[in-house]
Amino acid sequence: MKLGVCYYPEHWPEAMWAEDAKRMAEIGIRQVRIGEFAWSRIEPSPGIFEWGWLDRAIETLHQAGLHIVLGTPTATPPKWLIDAHPDVLAVDAHGRPRHFGSRRHYCFSSLTYRAECARIVEVLARRYGNHPAIAAWQTDNEYGCHDTIISYSNAARAGFRTWLAAKYSQIDALNTAWGNVFWSMEYRSFDEIDPPVETVTEANPAHRQDWARFASDEVAAFDRVQTDILRAHSPGRDVLHNYMGMFTAFDHFKLGEQLDVAAWDSYPLGFLEQAWWPEATKERFLRQGHPDFTAFHHDLYRGVGRGRWQVIEQQPGPVNWAPWNPAPLPGMVRAWTWEALAHGAECVSYFRWRQAPFAQEQMHAGLLRPDSVEAEAAGEARQVAAELAAVAGATTTKAPVALLFDYEAIWASQIQPQGKDYRGLELLIHFYSAARRLGLSVDVVHPSAELSGYQLILCPLQIFWPEGLSAKIKASGAVCVLGPRTGSKTDDFQIPANLAPGLAQELIPLVVGRVESLRPGHVEQAGPYKVTRWLEHIQSDLVPEAYTASGHGIWYQTDKVDYLACWPEAELLDAVLRRRCEALGLATLSLPDGLRLRQRGAFMFAINYEAEPLDLCDHILGADSLDYVIGGPDLPAAGVAAWRIN
Amino acid sequence: MKLGVCYYPEHWPEAMWAEDAKRMAEIGIRQVRIGEFAWSRIEPSPGIFEWGWLDRAIETLHQAGLHIVLGTPTATPPKWLIDAHPDVLAVDAHGRPRHFGSRRHYCFSSLTYRAECARIVEVLARRYGNHPAIAAWQTDNEYGCHDTIISYSNAARAGFRTWLAAKYSQIDALNTAWGNVFWSMEYRSFDEIDPPVETVTEANPAHRQDWARFASDEVAAFDRVQTDILRAHSPGRDVLHNYMGMFTAFDHFKLGEQLDVAAWDSYPLGFLEQAWWPEATKERFLRQGHPDFTAFHHDLYRGVGRGRWQVIEQQPGPVNWAPWNPAPLPGMVRAWTWEALAHGAECVSYFRWRQAPFAQEQMHAGLLRPDSVEAEAAGEARQVAAELAAVAGATTTKAPVALLFDYEAIWASQIQPQGKDYRGLELLIHFYSAARRLGLSVDVVHPSAELSGYQLILCPLQIFWPEGLSAKIKASGAVCVLGPRTGSKTDDFQIPANLAPGLAQELIPLVVGRVESLRPGHVEQAGPYKVTRWLEHIQSDLVPEAYTASGHGIWYQTDKVDYLACWPEAELLDAVLRRRCEALGLATLSLPDGLRLRQRGAFMFAINYEAEPLDLCDHILGADSLDYVIGGPDLPAAGVAAWRIN
Amino acid sequence: MKLGVCYYPEHWPEAMWAEDAKRMAEIGIRQVRIGEFAWSRIEPSPGIFEWGWLDRAIETLHQAGLHIVLGTPTATPPKWLIDAHPDVLAVDAHGRPRHFGSRRHYCFSSLTYRAECARIVEVLARRYGNHPAIAAWQTDNEYGCHDTIISYSNAARAGFRTWLAAKYSQIDALNTAWGNVFWSMEYRSFDEIDPPVETVTEANPAHRQDWARFASDEVAAFDRVQTDILRAHSPGRDVLHNYMGMFTAFDHFKLGEQLDVAAWDSYPLGFLEQAWWPEATKERFLRQGHPDFTAFHHDLYRGVGRGRWQVIEQQPGPVNWAPWNPAPLPGMVRAWTWEALAHGAECVSYFRWRQAPFAQEQMHAGLLRPDSVEAEAAGEARQVAAELAAVAGATTTKAPVALLFDYEAIWASQIQPQGKDYRGLELLIHFYSAARRLGLSVDVVHPSAELSGYQLILCPLQIFWPEGLSAKIKASGAVCVLGPRTGSKTDDFQIPANLAPGLAQELIPLVVGRVESLRPGHVEQAGPYKVTRWLEHIQSDLVPEAYTASGHGIWYQTDKVDYLACWPEAELLDAVLRRRCEALGLATLSLPDGLRLRQRGAFMFAINYEAEPLDLCDHILGADSLDYVIGGPDLPAAGVAAWRIN
Repeated sequence: MKLGVCYYPEHWPEAMWAEDAKRMAEIGIRQVRIGEFAWSRIEPSPGIFEWGWLDRAIETLHQAGLHIVLGTPTATPPKWLIDAHPDVLAVDAHGRPRHFGSRRHYCFSSLTYRAECARIVEVLARRYGNHPAIAAWQTDNEYGCHDTIISYSNAARAGFRTWLAAKYSQIDALNTAWGNVFWSMEYRSFDEIDPPVETVTEANPAHRQDWARFASDEVAAFDRVQTDILRAHSPGRDVLHNYMGMFTAFDHFKLGEQLDVAAWDSYPLGFLEQAWWPEATKERFLRQGHPDFTAFHHDLYRGVGRGRWQVIEQQPGPVNWAPWNPAPLPGMVRAWTWEALAHGAECVSYFRWRQAPFAQEQMHAGLLRPDSVEAEAAGEARQVAAELAAVAGATTTKAPVALLFDYEAIWASQIQPQGKDYRGLELLIHFYSAARRLGLSVDVVHPSAELSGYQLILCPLQIFWPEGLSAKIKASGAVCVLGPRTGSKTDDFQIPANLAPGLAQELIPLVVGRVESLRPGHVEQAGPYKVTRWLEHIQSDLVPEAYTASGHGIWYQTDKVDYLACWPEAELLDAVLRRRCEALGLATLSLPDGLRLRQRGAFMFAINYEAEPLDLCDHILGADSLDYVIGGPDLPAAGVAAWRIN
Repeated sequence: MKLGVCYYPEHWPEAMWAEDAKRMAEIGIRQVRIGEFAWSRIEPSPGIFEWGWLDRAIETLHQAGLHIVLGTPTATPPKWLIDAHPDVLAVDAHGRPRHFGSRRHYCFSSLTYRAECARIVEVLARRYGNHPAIAAWQTDNEYGCHDTIISYSNAARAGFRTWLAAKYSQIDALNTAWGNVFWSMEYRSFDEIDPPVETVTEANPAHRQDWARFASDEVAAFDRVQTDILRAHSPGRDVLHNYMGMFTAFDHFKLGEQLDVAAWDSYPLGFLEQAWWPEATKERFLRQGHPDFTAFHHDLYRGVGRGRWQVIEQQPGPVNWAPWNPAPLPGMVRAWTWEALAHGAECVSYFRWRQAPFAQEQMHAGLLRPDSVEAEAAGEARQVAAELAAVAGATTTKAPVALLFDYEAIWASQIQPQGKDYRGLELLIHFYSAARRLGLSVDVVHPSAELSGYQLILCPLQIFWPEGLSAKIKASGAVCVLGPRTGSKTDDFQIPANLAPGLAQELIPLVVGRVESLRPGHVEQAGPYKVTRWLEHIQSDLVPEAYTASGHGIWYQTDKVDYLACWPEAELLDAVLRRRCEALGLATLSLPDGLRLRQRGAFMFAINYEAEPLDLCDHILGADSLDYVIGGPDLPAAGVAAWRIN
Repeated sequence: MKLGVCYYPEHWPEAMWAEDAKRMAEIGIRQVRIGEFAWSRIEPSPGIFEWGWLDRAIETLHQAGLHIVLGTPTATPPKWLIDAHPDVLAVDAHGRPRHFGSRRHYCFSSLTYRAECARIVEVLARRYGNHPAIAAWQTDNEYGCHDTIISYSNAARAGFRTWLAAKYSQIDALNTAWGNVFWSMEYRSFDEIDPPVETVTEANPAHRQDWARFASDEVAAFDRVQTDILRAHSPGRDVLHNYMGMFTAFDHFKLGEQLDVAAWDSYPLGFLEQAWWPEATKERFLRQGHPDFTAFHHDLYRGVGRGRWQVIEQQPGPVNWAPWNPAPLPGMVRAWTWEALAHGAECVSYFRWRQAPFAQEQMHAGLLRPDSVEAEAAGEARQVAAELAAVAGATTTKAPVALLFDYEAIWASQIQPQGKDYRGLELLIHFYSAARRLGLSVDVVHPSAELSGYQLILCPLQIFWPEGLSAKIKASGAVCVLGPRTGSKTDDFQIPANLAPGLAQELIPLVVGRVESLRPGHVEQAGPYKVTRWLEHIQSDLVPEAYTASGHGIWYQTDKVDYLACWPEAELLDAVLRRRCEALGLATLSLPDGLRLRQRGAFMFAINYEAEPLDLCDHILGADSLDYVIGGPDLPAAGVAAWRIN
């Protein structure tokens, strides 16, 4: 457990560097990330390298005892590179190359750009790969930021054709898999196939799903060029990438397999404003962020990193990029830091050291103001650094609950929502929130993960149901909760021959006869539960646990499996989980939306996300006599408590 | 009166065909439509035809006693055709060709494509034109679907110039007609004229109106290529086209003149979700569709087909293409079927036989589920088939009320709404609803139609008032109700020299001095009536029947004519129609929004669109003692009753 | 003080001209504007001029005693010119040339077009420059209408590079000023720089601000070509341009320096509908327009024209171009005319004489209907003409209050709103309304204006704080009210080294530590005041006059200066201004939103914008015994009163 910061020595006079490094260390910072946007300073003209400044910057930080994460600068190819190789540019859905002048203007499929990246990464890795201060490398920056996964370049089209040929071998296999007989969409060769774009009405969903898979694979292939070089020239250093929140356009698990550490960039207030929460929720958590949204991503990236992960960019104050950008509640930066650490982060690193007075992010706060005076977050970071000792040695252990997360299912739900507001990520976090309301710790894992040891497995959005998954779940002995649309598509994006839930019929004997999506405002009442958005009409010999007034079962249960035939509102999810936890002997609480717990090893952490004080005694039996190591039962707004579990 | 279904033998193993045909017949289906998307199976490579499968499919259906409607496959030109002739593609408003990968990607003006269509239609017509099972041909599929009437291709531009030269002869005539002196828009030759697109601000409305007329004419010309070939090679068979609901971008009457039968595709739930109804209406009729919207289209297409029409695609369950896609109420598919038959349909044909498990419409219900089990609608179709005998021999007769419908006026209201929510189609259906609330049957007819025999003629949107129409109306002896904007434009899209209502001043002595459009929420109270959206300031010696608090008359009346100088709310329309019906001796009712009647010959039909039961006795005097042949006075939700009129 | 009208002789048969001119004179009109869209009639083919009709039109108007403002026709280059020189067309953000068919389709940067303009203006000026009827010239028409200031043409790109090279001399100076080290955006030469468009995420704000400055300068350069020619060939005539309301994409003051008179086009109802007012405000002033919006523009253009200005297009009835287009309240056209005259207009000219029956504006009212009958506005104009004598000789004097208006600040607030609803123009008018509610007359001036003589200087949006402005304000002795974000950017669009308010710290000792933007609905209560949208966290030794519940000061005050650290709601603004006015001895009133006063010389005017009557005695002490020259204390809806100030 340590703290870090993101630093841009190239933005400041060299005379300030030593003092900056000293102040970082004084605050308690141990890691510093640099370099990820500095290509034009490292190589100001083609083949002309300026190493002096970077040598000295690294040395200065090293002298202050800081470990360095060095970023490859490939997110920002300079103008001379673009002018020399215009085919590097990403191409939008209308066939127009994106323009230079911000960042991420490259196409992942451009082989020209991959060669340029290999070149710059290799010179960096050769020069600094064995420097004692270099602890890790970050590849590129926030893959997918600004919706950049998809490019409609010639390179992407050629790559897609090659990818399809490798997958299907014969064109007839593709025609059959996609059902191209429909609307005379049959192809005679792979070279006839284009990206699914600018069609008159929607393209074939199987076409779109394969395009999404291809685009995701291109990210991993692009990154692999860099990780191979870094591992060759910088042995013993971690390689990480900084993922973002809410980005689902590529498979983070697949990229994660190539990395040593998953890192992510946590901006709770910006995410709250951008996401789907209703207005009242956005107002309630205006200066705190949504309690479960951030935590969900912590648990996700712990899964992506196979246990090793960090927050490499932590919001320290108002940002510049959301529609509105409020300031965090006093203490909230500390609370966010502790939430991440409670979930097992190796490091929480603030973005950025000093607010820049120029360019696109000049309104983005740092630990220091542009005039070098400490901003509010600096003191909160200092406080966390001082508190770290109290929970030393806490290691993260397996949670009792696993939540299965499959990026392919999110693409499928976007490609074929069937109801306009069927948002896959929302449903996943909706289930996650239900577990967290009960006080449970959760692991977010890929369906291919080892599942033994879990007591409860949540499958909110397992649209594709892999062969073998049913057996693995049975073998785990866990109780399993299946959401709507489970197993509703084959890998070829077809309806299974035995209808949904397809292969998951191995777990529960029912068939989805038909489905309907329901417009906002329409509620189907099912006893005490409300159903919105989605309702399945089930055929089964099972007697439903609840059914709508029109007679449709919405909750089916066997010994080990629950199936929810609807978009469940919170009350239904709570009832399902609470009943199962009671039977499993898992202790549960009834936490208000603003209070969350998370266990890390021998310690339990509690964080108050409300703008008002909370008394833990109102929510946890015996909270007044716990073995507190941080705080106590009276949690102020943004307050943190931690206690040793007996 | 018969039932039908849409079937895609090419989607299923040949081994299933015979059983499918047998089951269709068992349900009571007599007509089957096939072939309209099968080009890539008929001609998998240029000039290489595969007839075997289609020969056998037709034979199999024939053996089961089914009549076939064979579709020309021109809505889905295959990839090889597009690659060989890229000029076939439609071009969007920004000059970009549309891409292959869905359907309707062709440009109506492409002479290359017309030649390709002639080629494929001729080989089809020659092969099957005299087959005893072929009862009819369908040309193409849903002209205009996915907003495909307009294309900005080079072919369209060239065609537009030719069309303009033919219409105006001299360029000065066009300059004068359009008023091009305004803003120096004068042309020196027809070859200087482009489609009205991507101008800095709105293009000249006369330019846009002529562009809309040209585009509409292109559809008829495109279709004519096919109908000429079909009539030449398949004598004695009907030629039809399947129109859609809510599509107004081309003149359906003009195309209809070339057809034997007008068919349309009725999707009440999808239309409800897509149209302008307020949220409460969408919720109320969520699983039933709007009672008047579907019926309006029935009456429209009866007019388009000069009496001969059918529903060739009837929604049988949830669809896939609306923002939300709920399931129909139990019994609703039967009710929809009876509504169509009551309005005079020759056939109601369900789309589709079996739900496809693949491609774009995999979430669209059929009579069978993908696993061949009967879906809900199959039983309802079977019930209708059994009930048909009860109303045998009922023939449709002229209704007492005619509603004039002019596609050109809809384009004009879109080109120059003057108030953002002045929606022509909405106003037409708004008037139609008023007549239906009174229990009246309505014919929807083109202004060129014979009007003798009608007692009441409604003109909600007769923006262009043809010469001779006044005389024809006078000659009919009918009472005539004119809506706002009547006669407000000359054919050249100019304000008439005598101001609005222009030539309709032959019917009523008043002048529209000026008009104003009113923002949503603004209401002008006129005694008991509310005025919204639109208010005209009238000069007339007539004393208005009602006027606003600010003194503007909104309802003027002569012996035979009413003029409404506003967007009338329902109360005003009801008052106008009720007063006139009383004087005419037309019996009226006061039906709630969920109950509708329609006469077919000697039978009256009643349909309950509410989700709750209705008692006819609450709304029709003596309903308990009618001569019921279907149902009775107690109408369950989605219930149908029919009785013989004494 | 006089009245005018806009007339298009080319739209009407020559036989009507003499009668038209006579009727104008009879109504009391003295000025007539003609010619500004007539290029295709003056030069129907390249180099072929048709002068006869224009000679006769001018002569006819002259004979009727009318003074002519002759427009250059450069807003509407004819088709032959576009076809001969396609590079004349403006290019949109996606690189597509705009199409012919409406107006303003040219690019300001096109040197080809500037040459064509010089050609046509010179022949016009040589022919009519010394004609006795020609009183003034109007250059082009409504620069910026339909969002036409920006063009992404090759000519604009080349011009931008030249402009940047002239500004920065060395590319490193630009890189430093823009902070291009951020994201490796550094350039090696000016020829590498493109317009800031189609970047993946936002472009550098400094890049965008310079692009906006360049585009604005291009308008002035384009116009200068014409004004130079006009002054050379038409000595002694005024040159004016007709600005629009709400247009802020170019610097009106800068263009104004080249003009003799600033004219503007006032459409109160269209502006009300298009602007940001809440629904209730739009409903309340539906037929009146917003009382302060129009007046603000009068005061602005008086500043732009250095005292000489007119309304050259006054809305006379419903227009055609707003989403909804209601009619003005009876009397409102007279009231608008008097409001303009009260603010010092030299002329109020109605647009247009007779409503055109054709083309884009056929639904735009005139003084006459298309059938030549007088429309409502004609009588109101006649009434004003008769009333003019009552206030003869009234000259406009300096107001007690100056409001600083800087177009560059508006661009900055659009480029970097930081909160989505931070609308610069809204904030300026929000401050203006506060002064008007107190009954104060206001001058809207550029920050470079002479400030001596003002008692109160309002700076709602002075984001860039010029060197010397603090000293000038101090020297004026006036009290100064600074809005949020004052001085928050250097000219290079950087945060000042001493943080905001930067150079304005010379006026008040405080520092903005950080800022936050607040989503709609979020309110921070500060004693009796509400804060929304924007809140600054201030460091200062000053004790705030008010602070939020969370402890942030929102109002700081010194002897001569107020600083508002938030988006102030009306109550706070009123409190600030009222306290200062009391101390300054400026008499204030508490006017309701619908009542406004304005002084012109020895006369005070009152106008009632409510749809209900008002009694001045309820709002002004002694209103029953004033020396009225128009009207009296009982103001009907749309009523006007004027009295001599004792």
